[in-house]
Amino acid sequence: MNRIPVGVLGATGTVGQRFVQLLAEHPWFEVAVVTGSDRTVGRPYGEGVNWLMPGRVPARTAELIVQPTDTDLDLPGNPPVVFSALPTGEAKEWEPRFAAAGYAVVTNTSVFRMNPTVPLLIPEINPDHTCLIPTQRAENNWPGFIVASPNCSTTSAILPLKVFQEAFGVEAAMITTLQAISGAGYPGVSSMDIYDNVVPYIGGEDEKLENEPTKLLGDVRDGRMIRAGIAVSAQANRVPVVDGHLASVSVRLGRRATPDEAIAALRDWRPPAICAQLPSSPQELLIYRDEPDRPQPRRDRDAGDGLAWTVGKVRACPVLDVRYVALTHNTLRGAASGALLNAELLAVQGYIGN
Amino acid sequence: MNRIPVGVLGATGTVGQRFVQLLAEHPWFEVAVVTGSDRTVGRPYGEGVNWLMPGRVPARTAELIVQPTDTDLDLPGNPPVVFSALPTGEAKEWEPRFAAAGYAVVTNTSVFRMNPTVPLLIPEINPDHTCLIPTQRAENNWPGFIVASPNCSTTSAILPLKVFQEAFGVEAAMITTLQAISGAGYPGVSSMDIYDNVVPYIGGEDEKLENEPTKLLGDVRDGRMIRAGIAVSAQANRVPVVDGHLASVSVRLGRRATPDEAIAALRDWRPPAICAQLPSSPQELLIYRDEPDRPQPRRDRDAGDGLAWTVGKVRACPVLDVRYVALTHNTLRGAASGALLNAELLAVQGYIGN
Amino acid sequence: MNRIPVGVLGATGTVGQRFVQLLAEHPWFEVAVVTGSDRTVGRPYGEGVNWLMPGRVPARTAELIVQPTDTDLDLPGNPPVVFSALPTGEAKEWEPRFAAAGYAVVTNTSVFRMNPTVPLLIPEINPDHTCLIPTQRAENNWPGFIVASPNCSTTSAILPLKVFQEAFGVEAAMITTLQAISGAGYPGVSSMDIYDNVVPYIGGEDEKLENEPTKLLGDVRDGRMIRAGIAVSAQANRVPVVDGHLASVSVRLGRRATPDEAIAALRDWRPPAICAQLPSSPQELLIYRDEPDRPQPRRDRDAGDGLAWTVGKVRACPVLDVRYVALTHNTLRGAASGALLNAELLAVQGYIGN
Amino acid sequence: MNRIPVGVLGATGTVGQRFVQLLAEHPWFEVAVVTGSDRTVGRPYGEGVNWLMPGRVPARTAELIVQPTDTDLDLPGNPPVVFSALPTGEAKEWEPRFAAAGYAVVTNTSVFRMNPTVPLLIPEINPDHTCLIPTQRAENNWPGFIVASPNCSTTSAILPLKVFQEAFGVEAAMITTLQAISGAGYPGVSSMDIYDNVVPYIGGEDEKLENEPTKLLGDVRDGRMIRAGIAVSAQANRVPVVDGHLASVSVRLGRRATPDEAIAALRDWRPPAICAQLPSSPQELLIYRDEPDRPQPRRDRDAGDGLAWTVGKVRACPVLDVRYVALTHNTLRGAASGALLNAELLAVQGYIGN
Repeated sequence: MNRIPVGVLGATGTVGQRFVQLLAEHPWFEVAVVTGSDRTVGRPYGEGVNWLMPGRVPARTAELIVQPTDTDLDLPGNPPVVFSALPTGEAKEWEPRFAAAGYAVVTNTSVFRMNPTVPLLIPEINPDHTCLIPTQRAENNWPGFIVASPNCSTTSAILPLKVFQEAFGVEAAMITTLQAISGAGYPGVSSMDIYDNVVPYIGGEDEKLENEPTKLLGDVRDGRMIRAGIAVSAQANRVPVVDGHLASVSVRLGRRATPDEAIAALRDWRPPAICAQLPSSPQELLIYRDEPDRPQPRRDRDAGDGLAWTVGKVRACPVLDVRYVALTHNTLRGAASGALLNAELLAVQGYIGN
Repeated sequence: MNRIPVGVLGATGTVGQRFVQLLAEHPWFEVAVVTGSDRTVGRPYGEGVNWLMPGRVPARTAELIVQPTDTDLDLPGNPPVVFSALPTGEAKEWEPRFAAAGYAVVTNTSVFRMNPTVPLLIPEINPDHTCLIPTQRAENNWPGFIVASPNCSTTSAILPLKVFQEAFGVEAAMITTLQAISGAGYPGVSSMDIYDNVVPYIGGEDEKLENEPTKLLGDVRDGRMIRAGIAVSAQANRVPVVDGHLASVSVRLGRRATPDEAIAALRDWRPPAICAQLPSSPQELLIYRDEPDRPQPRRDRDAGDGLAWTVGKVRACPVLDVRYVALTHNTLRGAASGALLNAELLAVQGYIGN
Repeated sequence: MNRIPVGVLGATGTVGQRFVQLLAEHPWFEVAVVTGSDRTVGRPYGEGVNWLMPGRVPARTAELIVQPTDTDLDLPGNPPVVFSALPTGEAKEWEPRFAAAGYAVVTNTSVFRMNPTVPLLIPEINPDHTCLIPTQRAENNWPGFIVASPNCSTTSAILPLKVFQEAFGVEAAMITTLQAISGAGYPGVSSMDIYDNVVPYIGGEDEKLENEPTKLLGDVRDGRMIRAGIAVSAQANRVPVVDGHLASVSVRLGRRATPDEAIAALRDWRPPAICAQLPSSPQELLIYRDEPDRPQPRRDRDAGDGLAWTVGKVRACPVLDVRYVALTHNTLRGAASGALLNAELLAVQGYIGN
Repeated sequence: MNRIPVGVLGATGTVGQRFVQLLAEHPWFEVAVVTGSDRTVGRPYGEGVNWLMPGRVPARTAELIVQPTDTDLDLPGNPPVVFSALPTGEAKEWEPRFAAAGYAVVTNTSVFRMNPTVPLLIPEINPDHTCLIPTQRAENNWPGFIVASPNCSTTSAILPLKVFQEAFGVEAAMITTLQAISGAGYPGVSSMDIYDNVVPYIGGEDEKLENEPTKLLGDVRDGRMIRAGIAVSAQANRVPVVDGHLASVSVRLGRRATPDEAIAALRDWRPPAICAQLPSSPQELLIYRDEPDRPQPRRDRDAGDGLAWTVGKVRACPVLDVRYVALTHNTLRGAASGALLNAELLAVQGYIGN
């Protein structure tokens, strides 16, 4: 079976490396092109990259010559598919150019997430939002398109909100996150800032946490994005943990529910049927744990190969209605694997592939 | 000037050691008696203790022979004063016996904190609550009495709530804490549980956080405790930090206030006048920092010799009214130093000393 | 193909849990019996165990009823095979009893490691030492036998010593280890002892490091153990790392060798041919890395599924002859997986199985 | 009493900040001039600096306007005194220029440490090495001069070597260090490199550890430096500890000594008499601890206000003669405080001041 050749834009950064690592074993996609910074262009990827992932650079990708980030990539496909792990400034410039040049851009960057015609996607939550793609193409007069995945902190908190929205309605959420250092990339957080310490600030993160859920939980009607009317208050904290974002959330529901009803809703919830066709979507997507001290980053981040949500501590909230704690792996579900799932969804829905 | 001789109950544990360390340099008190477990009774304190504080055992205390915990201590004073750092089970048994035997019991334990006639004290917040002492004595027919200090997590969150209560009224608070490992004593938290990890659970802590503020911010009228009508929702997390509890708090105020008004209230607030007489109360009690990334445990815990609150990040809350982040040193302000301040207050108010 | 049923003694502790986890997916062995402490005896393993491994208790083992540790286990086999993860005191008592009762005891404990007739085994280093088994049986009049695996710290340092011994001879070694907290089990090291700290002491570890290499690198002649004449000086340190022991070693060689010759010896070395038959032995057993800052625990411990040695920094030593740094995963190669490999070796050599 | 006005070159970096903090409370010196990078020149120090020390910028220094680093500082004194915390490249350029312009340059940088006429000083170890200053002046035709302090890792290991050299002679030393992250400055070590990890490499550190002791323990005869004939083999490791470098050392002595004799030598050793006149030199300079698990960074780094050596674990070495473990605070004794002590020595010896 032929795999779909894809490009990775910004392949030498940490998110780009993660794409390369994950794609090396992907059943549907294979890396055919990598782009990188001036420093690395023209060199074999295996030599140019400062590989920070476990193990070695995948052999086939290691031999690819790093290309400059430009829209004339030698990449087949209709449309050709690129994963974007570009730095923010470059993403802003290049992602629209790639869409204008006919590429399907599956991005992990934040630049166009809140653009009303760019689907902000988690396949298990809002797979139907891809129906924004025709609107996006029409409005921009693009042969290609952009789809985005949400911020890693938003991701950690979102799935129980989705479940509660379906079951009870959600009016407001108070989110406090405890986020891992890997979320800041490399070199990222100075050890002098985070060792024996907590930093109650991650630039721009509170805003993302307050905005992205309303889009993820919104509706697309007549090709237009209708954001959900949910008030979100967020406080993001950086904690000395390598991987795994934990979100402590309190929710005001549309209609009252007991903790037992909330737990039952979580246990009974099933993702949309289309997810069964996505090879990366884990069998057990939402793991509810009864222990009072779970989820925990080190012990739960790798559940479902880093793609599951682990949820626990559902209980009544004396101020709003119900509280919970949720956790996901920030560089897998919250970043590269999440974007890969988006590409799988696009393939199943026929937006990419043959 | 003669210092008041005091006893330390449970002097060989970590809180007891902290009492011993702090009292060694205290201008008003000096350690005259130490009690300990069977293992250490009869030995010089300096030999029996597994000293975990920085530096060495204070020389004079090191020579004291550890006594069994019993009410026949050879301790002068009217009343004689003991600081209790007993384990919970022993505190439950012995603190009332000491009060019944005529001692002033200044406790750091949790057992009697919510007892309606036991003052739960932070001198800078509710120094007048000591007027519960006569009620306590009368109801129990005790010549002595017990005063308690709050849990270290409650302490970290409370001062801005007090300020806002005075300025605007407080109706509800949502508190998420990030707490240091030293709060669990020694050996306390296993390194395998907390390294590269966060634990969203500390036994009993959420309940303390939800109850104690209503007592600290309540009124005593006619010798009776009237708790404040504040709904509190709490989620305590253990994080890999040695010292310093950080509280992320969102508040529903009695009347609307802008973040600027809230910041002004914090900056303008002054502790009750009596605090100027307490040698341990820091000059600058509430430090408001404008930087978006403060307070931080490692950088702010030692402010005011570990007795100040550092507060920051006051801003509007999209769900309730106003948010803030506050931090205190959990083993100083939140434990031993806090209890010591209570004793200083009792001395100024004439409940102890000559 | 039928798998060999095995028992796990002390299956509820951390090493025992690791055995259970690894055996769940082993091609040759399957867990048929688990023994545990009084607290857990009579309960299904899945309920009695406080599972600390990633993921969930393997389903088939979870249903086994925990047995008391005794030699009347309902375990077929000629001899029946048990893996011992018993606490030291129990190992001392029970391992000889099991051998006397006809069991093959594959132990990870330290008690009989230095016993002259007990093979101290790393299959890739001294597979021929199993020829001590007949001596052991004869001397003790045992139908069964005991084989041991070395301490996790010894393991981390040993493979390059073996290579150098073969290539140049080894006269002396100075070993300084930086050891992970998981080596101390659970709860093991208090977070208050190791956070923002290093402890230059692990009880008994220096002695093990100074003794075990002389046995591993020794010869068996005429059924007798001849220890290697190597002087070892060791200093074990505990560092705040979850998994992975790093050993910094300087060696006096039997004959001079340049660093390049030493590196070539490491790169060219191949394990004994029998190792190709052991399913757990990694394809690339000794990974030499040229980077000046490798090996590193977090980045290299999982090489070869936690069974490879990563070695680096070979250079001339101004005091002895040559220096190197080596790393292994302490709970895999250095403990449970190492013992499992010993059982695989015994099976290939015909000491166990049918 | 008038304090000697001094300048701090590179005052906005982490070492420069430490100088500023320590000098704010120094009995003999006061900061009169601060120099900094282009970004900060012309602004008040308190505004230009990104203050990373505990507490606030000392008030008087905060008001000083940052000057460019140049030799026309408005600084009285004969000679005027500057502390250099310049980056390496700038130190190489500017320190000789300042000496040529008549300044006494007390540097913490590495550039000229091994220059044969620059005293490499620890006052308690080799105060007489300042007699190189006339040679230095003559050779370079400088009215001023440079004195240097050793690398923080060298410092941690050196004092017991000095003691043993005096008592028994020292022929060789094998040094393995476990070094704190603060040694790399700010931002310094990426948290992704050191969290749950150890890095067996610090650029240039092994060479410094192998060279500097031979100079510190050498003699000055006829104005010429004679380095000690000691072979040193070093392996520097970075560990996840905030402050405090630990050195594990094995020594070949000139004449055999038992561990007890070595311990007695350490306990009986006293620093040169001149050290009694240095206000920063701690009363108890060398603290020998009997516990098998000391010294430890977090528990011992602050001994003697961060200026004492804590030493332990003296025992026989099976390969060389005797082993020990030593610890100092790397940013205090090992950096800024050490340089300050050098200035105190120069004042007592009459090289600076009036």
